[in-house]
Amino acid sequence: MFMKRGIKIILKDNERIDDLEYKGLKIIQSKKGFCFGIDSVLLSDFAKEIKKDSKVLDLGTGTGIISILLCGKTKLKHITGVEIQKEVCDMAKRSIKLNNLEERFDIINEDLNNLSKILPANSFDAIVTNPPYKKENTGLKSKDQVQLVSRHEIMCNINDIAKVASNLLNNNCSIYMVHRPDRIIDIIEAFRKYKLEPKKMRFIYPKITKEPNLVLIKATKGAKEFLKIEKPLIVYNQNGTYTEEILEIYNKKCNEENN
Amino acid sequence: MFMKRGIKIILKDNERIDDLEYKGLKIIQSKKGFCFGIDSVLLSDFAKEIKKDSKVLDLGTGTGIISILLCGKTKLKHITGVEIQKEVCDMAKRSIKLNNLEERFDIINEDLNNLSKILPANSFDAIVTNPPYKKENTGLKSKDQVQLVSRHEIMCNINDIAKVASNLLNNNCSIYMVHRPDRIIDIIEAFRKYKLEPKKMRFIYPKITKEPNLVLIKATKGAKEFLKIEKPLIVYNQNGTYTEEILEIYNKKCNEENN
Repeated sequence: MFMKRGIKIILKDNERIDDLEYKGLKIIQSKKGFCFGIDSVLLSDFAKEIKKDSKVLDLGTGTGIISILLCGKTKLKHITGVEIQKEVCDMAKRSIKLNNLEERFDIINEDLNNLSKILPANSFDAIVTNPPYKKENTGLKSKDQVQLVSRHEIMCNINDIAKVASNLLNNNCSIYMVHRPDRIIDIIEAFRKYKLEPKKMRFIYPKITKEPNLVLIKATKGAKEFLKIEKPLIVYNQNGTYTEEILEIYNKKCNEENN
Repeated sequence: MFMKRGIKIILKDNERIDDLEYKGLKIIQSKKGFCFGIDSVLLSDFAKEIKKDSKVLDLGTGTGIISILLCGKTKLKHITGVEIQKEVCDMAKRSIKLNNLEERFDIINEDLNNLSKILPANSFDAIVTNPPYKKENTGLKSKDQVQLVSRHEIMCNINDIAKVASNLLNNNCSIYMVHRPDRIIDIIEAFRKYKLEPKKMRFIYPKITKEPNLVLIKATKGAKEFLKIEKPLIVYNQNGTYTEEILEIYNKKCNEENN
């Protein structure tokens, strides 16, 4: 059990609390399970242009990492996290309490393919999503069920996400996604099919001499055709240290000055 | 008039001969017209994997720059350049003579939309193309007719190129294209429509801190879905000098050593 300002947060045996080192935000994660990575941090930074008072949806919220960071980085009014896995939902709900975000962030334990029946159409101002990267029948599969569902398109694929996003987004509002570069063709095809026009794309290169291993994509419902590819985001300098931009995104430059 | 090994090359008033500084290759260009740029050099480098004895097609060959460079960089058997503009064709034909490439490179003065009637289907091992970048009704239009047709999709668009390329390429053979990054969505859509699966893409960033201004794309007819985005190609160092890779592509490192 963990006490915060008199609130009891039950921590299970296999769980730990990690400090996000950003505005005092914290997250509960499984010690051995799927922990958040740089992709979630980069996506929440990419989506930080989300406007004040926005109603936001986080598809496949997992432990809630992206929503929690967005609550810190933006003045969004409310974010709804949708997560199909019950035990992960439970963890996210406790992280909401831990961060006193009950009024801005809630969780729906649901298959995103059912969302159009539950939520009204055209009702969100922005959507963020860090979906499973791998096609159902590719790659090494994890034995852990939570990791399996988080990494492979078992419960939902890119097409499902584009379909539900297009239904739930207001016109002229955007979906922000992080994914693998080798999937951009599928993403572009699915987005265009559902009238989500890709507007901005940024490739993440681990080093300047390496292939990109992540891509950030913004697509806007009903927008005109024009894609802007942004400057490269390089994670490491050639000597293995983090680049200035990554330090800024992780808020480390500021922290270092404060320490 | 220009004499080379006893061959008379007629040079018109508004023309000049440029040394490609590569294996003695030269090109005739208009003094005031459309001159080749880094895009042609990068495309010929990107396509240098074209195999020995290949039969190659260059769609919208212009002055013939890409074909001439490919004759130097690869052991292709024969390359056919297709160019709709008569006066540009004439210039390219004289460049062929100038380089003694008559047996490996010829020109067809034709609209590429008519090619499927003239050339047999499935008859090429590779296609290269540096098409007009701009949609017909966008951007500042050049007063010069040659520049206009070279830069704007007046005589052909991405869809036309994908259609004819798919018809003329052998199965499992590839098209190599250079274009603007803001057009990749249109390119991907057109390529997939005509069974040309994008397999490799490389973004060209003028500097590491800038948005890309060119993209190289390889798509293979009838191939399986899997796109590889390559490491970034950076043109200039932060201090404004060319990067090592660009010097290598321009064969300057080698030349400098030789000088």
